[in-house]
Amino acid sequence: MFLTSLKRVLVGNPLATAQARHERLAKIPALAIFSSDNLSSVAYATEEILLVLVLAGTSALAYSPPIGIAIGVLTAIVASSYWQTIHAYPSGGGSYTVAKDNLGTYSGLVAGAALLVDYVLTVSVSVASGVAAITSAWPGLYPHRVAICVGCVLLVMMANLRGIRETGRIFAIPTYWFIGCLALLLAGGFFQLLMQGAPPPPPATIPVQEPFSTFLVLRAFASGCAALTGIEAVANGVQAFKPPEARNAGITLAWMAFILGSSFLGVTFLAHIYQVAPHEGETVVSMLGGQSFGGTWVYFMIKAATAVILLLAANTSFAGFPMLASMLAKDRFLPRQFANRGDRLVFSNGIIILAGTSSLLLVLFGGSTHALIPLYAIGVFSAFTLSQTGMVRHWWKERGPHWRSHAAINGLGALATAAVVLVIGVSKFAYGAWIVFIIMPILVVGFLAVRRHYDQMGRQLSLSGFSPPRLGRHPVVVLVASIHRGVITALTYAKAISPNVTAITVDIDPTATSRLRMQWQEWAPEVPLVVLDSPYRSVLLPVLNYIDQMEKQQDGAYMTIILPEFVPARWWQHLLHNQTALLIKGALLFRRGKVAISIPYHLEE
Amino acid sequence: MFLTSLKRVLVGNPLATAQARHERLAKIPALAIFSSDNLSSVAYATEEILLVLVLAGTSALAYSPPIGIAIGVLTAIVASSYWQTIHAYPSGGGSYTVAKDNLGTYSGLVAGAALLVDYVLTVSVSVASGVAAITSAWPGLYPHRVAICVGCVLLVMMANLRGIRETGRIFAIPTYWFIGCLALLLAGGFFQLLMQGAPPPPPATIPVQEPFSTFLVLRAFASGCAALTGIEAVANGVQAFKPPEARNAGITLAWMAFILGSSFLGVTFLAHIYQVAPHEGETVVSMLGGQSFGGTWVYFMIKAATAVILLLAANTSFAGFPMLASMLAKDRFLPRQFANRGDRLVFSNGIIILAGTSSLLLVLFGGSTHALIPLYAIGVFSAFTLSQTGMVRHWWKERGPHWRSHAAINGLGALATAAVVLVIGVSKFAYGAWIVFIIMPILVVGFLAVRRHYDQMGRQLSLSGFSPPRLGRHPVVVLVASIHRGVITALTYAKAISPNVTAITVDIDPTATSRLRMQWQEWAPEVPLVVLDSPYRSVLLPVLNYIDQMEKQQDGAYMTIILPEFVPARWWQHLLHNQTALLIKGALLFRRGKVAISIPYHLEE
Repeated sequence: MFLTSLKRVLVGNPLATAQARHERLAKIPALAIFSSDNLSSVAYATEEILLVLVLAGTSALAYSPPIGIAIGVLTAIVASSYWQTIHAYPSGGGSYTVAKDNLGTYSGLVAGAALLVDYVLTVSVSVASGVAAITSAWPGLYPHRVAICVGCVLLVMMANLRGIRETGRIFAIPTYWFIGCLALLLAGGFFQLLMQGAPPPPPATIPVQEPFSTFLVLRAFASGCAALTGIEAVANGVQAFKPPEARNAGITLAWMAFILGSSFLGVTFLAHIYQVAPHEGETVVSMLGGQSFGGTWVYFMIKAATAVILLLAANTSFAGFPMLASMLAKDRFLPRQFANRGDRLVFSNGIIILAGTSSLLLVLFGGSTHALIPLYAIGVFSAFTLSQTGMVRHWWKERGPHWRSHAAINGLGALATAAVVLVIGVSKFAYGAWIVFIIMPILVVGFLAVRRHYDQMGRQLSLSGFSPPRLGRHPVVVLVASIHRGVITALTYAKAISPNVTAITVDIDPTATSRLRMQWQEWAPEVPLVVLDSPYRSVLLPVLNYIDQMEKQQDGAYMTIILPEFVPARWWQHLLHNQTALLIKGALLFRRGKVAISIPYHLEE
Repeated sequence: MFLTSLKRVLVGNPLATAQARHERLAKIPALAIFSSDNLSSVAYATEEILLVLVLAGTSALAYSPPIGIAIGVLTAIVASSYWQTIHAYPSGGGSYTVAKDNLGTYSGLVAGAALLVDYVLTVSVSVASGVAAITSAWPGLYPHRVAICVGCVLLVMMANLRGIRETGRIFAIPTYWFIGCLALLLAGGFFQLLMQGAPPPPPATIPVQEPFSTFLVLRAFASGCAALTGIEAVANGVQAFKPPEARNAGITLAWMAFILGSSFLGVTFLAHIYQVAPHEGETVVSMLGGQSFGGTWVYFMIKAATAVILLLAANTSFAGFPMLASMLAKDRFLPRQFANRGDRLVFSNGIIILAGTSSLLLVLFGGSTHALIPLYAIGVFSAFTLSQTGMVRHWWKERGPHWRSHAAINGLGALATAAVVLVIGVSKFAYGAWIVFIIMPILVVGFLAVRRHYDQMGRQLSLSGFSPPRLGRHPVVVLVASIHRGVITALTYAKAISPNVTAITVDIDPTATSRLRMQWQEWAPEVPLVVLDSPYRSVLLPVLNYIDQMEKQQDGAYMTIILPEFVPARWWQHLLHNQTALLIKGALLFRRGKVAISIPYHLEE
C-alpha cells in the first residue's frame, strides 16, 4: 500500500485506455521532445571535426568548411529519406520497420539491435557530457559524478513514466531556450564580422602530429557525423503525433533538420573565420560565445543552455527506445511485457529497462564521456544504412512516379552512411567499438530465441487435436506435521474435492509421531495416515519420494498435494515458521501432473 | 542440484539421527574446543591491567600482582560455582537455565540475551585481534583486514557446520600447541630468573597521566577480568560430552581453570619482576618472550601460537551460541528453526546466524579490536551474576548438606561479578558499552514477543471446541486470458473438484475478448464466462474486486480461484511471461477463505 502511494506521487494517477488519443503531441512540443538529442550534437560536432584535422597542423583546419558542407548535405539526404519514410510508413517507420519490410527479418533485427544499443548510448553519453559540464563548473561535485549521472537518468525516467504529453511540456522550454541561444550566438558572430571584418591570424601554430591525408579528412568527416545521431527519432515516433500523424511528423522533421543544418554550418563557418583552434579545457561553442559576448550574462546563458540540452538529449531515447521495444515485442522478438502500456499509458517496461542499462553503462564507464564515445554512432549509422537500402528496395518494388530519383536519393544516403560505418568501425575499433560488434549479434540471437519460444509455445498450446486430460480417481494427499484446526480444515477441503484422500506425515521425532497417530484416531479416523521415515531429518525428500512412488500407481492425469498452512497476522511472524511448504511447492512445480494447494488458516493475532 | 553438491563438498554427507550419540566429545578434544576462548585471554589480560595502572606512572605497576591474585581467586570462585552448576544441571546448565530455574523467566531471558551478545562479540573481538596479529606481521594485508576477518569467520563456520567431533579434531592441535608455548614461556622466564637473578630497574619512567586512586585499581581489576570470558562455555555444553556428561565436563572445567589461572598468574608475575611497561606496538607476552628467547625460533613460535589461538577462540562461540539458541527455541523464545539439527547433526541455523551477525559487526567496526572491546565482557559478567545469584537461591531452596558454604561461595561470586559489571558499565559506557545496554532489552522484548506469538498460535489452532468448516456449494473461479490447452486442462480440473465453476476474464483488448467469447462457445459452452472491465489495463484489481463481490453471495467457508499456468521448459523463458498469477496469489494470501491453485501445464521445449 505504501509502495502504491509512493508510485502515485511520483508517476501520477492511472489514465484510462480511452484517454490514449488525447496524449498525442502537437508539433511544437514534439519538436522539443524529438529534437533535443539531434540538436545537442551542435555542441560538440564541429569540435570533433577540428580535433581530427588539427592533428595535421593548423593549416589543415581550412578543410572544415567543405566537411561541414558535406555533412550538411548528408543531413539533407538523410532527412529527405526519412521524410519519404514517414509518408510511406505513417504508422511509425523506424529503421527496424523499413529494413524488415523491404530487406527481410534478419536485416530488420540487425537494425533494431543497432538502434536499441544506440538509444542506450545516447542516454549514457548525453548525461555523462552534460554532467561533465556541470562538474567543470563546480569541481567539488566531481567525485560524485557517477551518482549525479545516475540521478539524472532516474529523473528523466520518472518524467517519462508520468506520460509523454507532460514530458513534452517539461522539455519544451529548455529546448527552445537552446535554439534561441544558438541563434543569438550565430547572429552575434556574423554581426561582429560585418562591423569589424575578419580577425587577425592566430598567435601560435600547433605542432603537426600526423601527415595530412585523404584518410584524415574522411576521419574528420566521420567524427562530425555524430551531428546526425538522433535524426531518426521522429520517424520512429510518428504514432506519438496528433493526427494527421505523417504530415505533422514530416513537418517536424523538416524543421529539425533545418535548425540542425543551419546552426551546425553556422558554428563551423564562424569557427573557421575566427580561426578557432580546438584545445583542452574549453569547447569550441564556448570560445565562439566568448568572442562575441565574453564575460557578459549572455555568454553564461549560452553555456548553461548547452549543459541543459545535453541532459535533455537523453530524453529523446526515452521516447524512442520504448516505442521500438514495443514494436519488437508485438512481433514477438522481445518479451511481451514491453508491448504493454503502463497505467500512465506509456511503455513503462521499456522506459525502466533503458534507464537501468544506461545507468549500468554510466557506472561501468565511471561516468566518462570520453570512454563511451567510441561505442557511439556506429549503431545509428548501421541502422541508417539498412533503412535507406530498404527504401531503395521499396521504390524499386513500387515503381511509382519518379521512383528512380527517390531511389537515387536513398541510394546515395545508403552509400554515404555505409562509408561512415566503415570509417568509424575501423578507426575506433580498438577503443571500444568492438563491444558494439559483440553486443549486436547477441541481441539478434536473443530476438530469435524469444521468437522461437513464443512460436513453440503457440504450437504446444494449440487446441487442434487436443483432448482434455482425464482425472480418474484423482488422488489427493494431505501433508500433516501435527493435528490442529488448520489440518482439520485442510482435510475437510480435501474430502470435498476428491473421494481418494490420504494423509502423510514425516517421522522426525518418534514421540511426536506416536502422539499424532493417537490423535488421528480421534479426529480423522476415516482418512488413512501414512508415516514416512526420514533418517536424515529432512521433510522434503521423503515427501518427494512418496509422491514419485505414488505416480506409478496413479490412475488419472493429475495428483493433488494439499499443504495446510497458517497465515500469521503480522509479517514478522512468518520468520517464526519453517518454510517447508514453500520448498515442497517449489519442487513440485517441476514435476508433471502435480497440483500443490496451500489451504490457508488465518491467525487473528 | 549444483548447490546441493557444493554443500556436500563443503559440509559433508548427511548424518543419520541414530549417529547422534557417537558425535559426543571426549575430554581431550573437549578441552580444546571449549577452552580456546578462555585461554586466549592470557594473551591480553595482563596487558589490559598494566595499561590502566601505568596511567598513574610506573610506580603504580607494583599493584599488578595483588590484582592478578584477586582475579586468580575470582577465577577459582567462578569455576567452583560452575563446577557445582554442572553437577546440579547435568543436562546443560548455562546461566540461562540456572537463572530461569531459580530466579524466574525474566532473569533467565536477561542472562540469555547477555550471553548471545557476548558470543557474537567473542567471535568479532577474537577474529579482529587475531587478524591484527597477522596484519602487523604482513602490513601489506592491512587494507584487506575486514575481508580477511569475514573470511576467517566463514572458515570457522564451515568447520562447525561439518559437525562437532571433526571440529574438535581440527582445533585440538593448535590449542595444545598454545598451552605448550605458554608453559615454555613461563619455564624460560623463571629459569632465567633463577640463573641470573632479577633484572636491573627500567631505563626510563613513564609520565603520570592520572593520580593514583582506589578507583584506578578497580578499573585495572575490571579490565583484567576479560581473562574470565569464555569460562561458562563448558557449563553450556555439557550435553556435547561423552557420558557421564557431568563428570567429564566438571573435570574439563577444572583443568581449564587451572591452566588459565596458572598461566595468567605466571605471566603477571614475570611481567612484574622484569618490570615490563606496556607500550604501543608490542604486546606484553611478546616482550616476555623476547626477554627469554629473543630472536630464536621459539620466540616466533610463541607469537604464531598466540595469533592462532585468538582466531580459534572464535570457535568456542560456535559451540556455545547454537546450543543456547536451541535451548531458547525449545522454550519458544526464539524461532523454532534454531531447535532443528541440520543434516550434519549440528544446529546449523544458530551457526549461520552467529557467523552473519559477527561478520556484520566486523564490517561495521572496520575489523578493529579497539573499537569492539568496550562492548565486550559486560554481557558475560551480567550472565555470571544472574547465574550465581540463581545458584544461591538453588542452595537455599534445596537446603542439602553444607548448603550454607555452597551458597556463600556463589554469593561471593555474585557480588564480585556484579561489581565488575558496575565498573565496566560505568567506565566504558561512553565508549560503546551503551550499545549493549540498548541491544539487551530489545532482545528480551523480542524473546517475549516470539513466545507470545507461539502461545497465541497454540490457542488459535487448538482443537477444543472446534467444528470443521462447511464447504457448501464450493464456488470455483477459473481465470482465463485466452483459450489454449492449459486453460482447457484447468477447466477439466475445476469441474472435477466442484459442480459450481465460473470462468472470468479481464477485458484489456476488446478484439481479443470478442475472439475469446467466440472460441468459448466452441470449447467450454457449459462453463459461464464473466468478462470484467478494466479501464486502467490492470488485471489484478478487477479480479480482486470480483472475488470480494462474490464473497458476499458466498455460501460455504472456502472459495477456490484456479490460475492456469504454463511451466516453460527452460528457466530464462519465465522472463518472457507476465507474472500476473504470482501477483494474484500474493494478494489472495491475505484474504480469508480463499484458496488459489495453479494448474501447471508443462511445455516441452
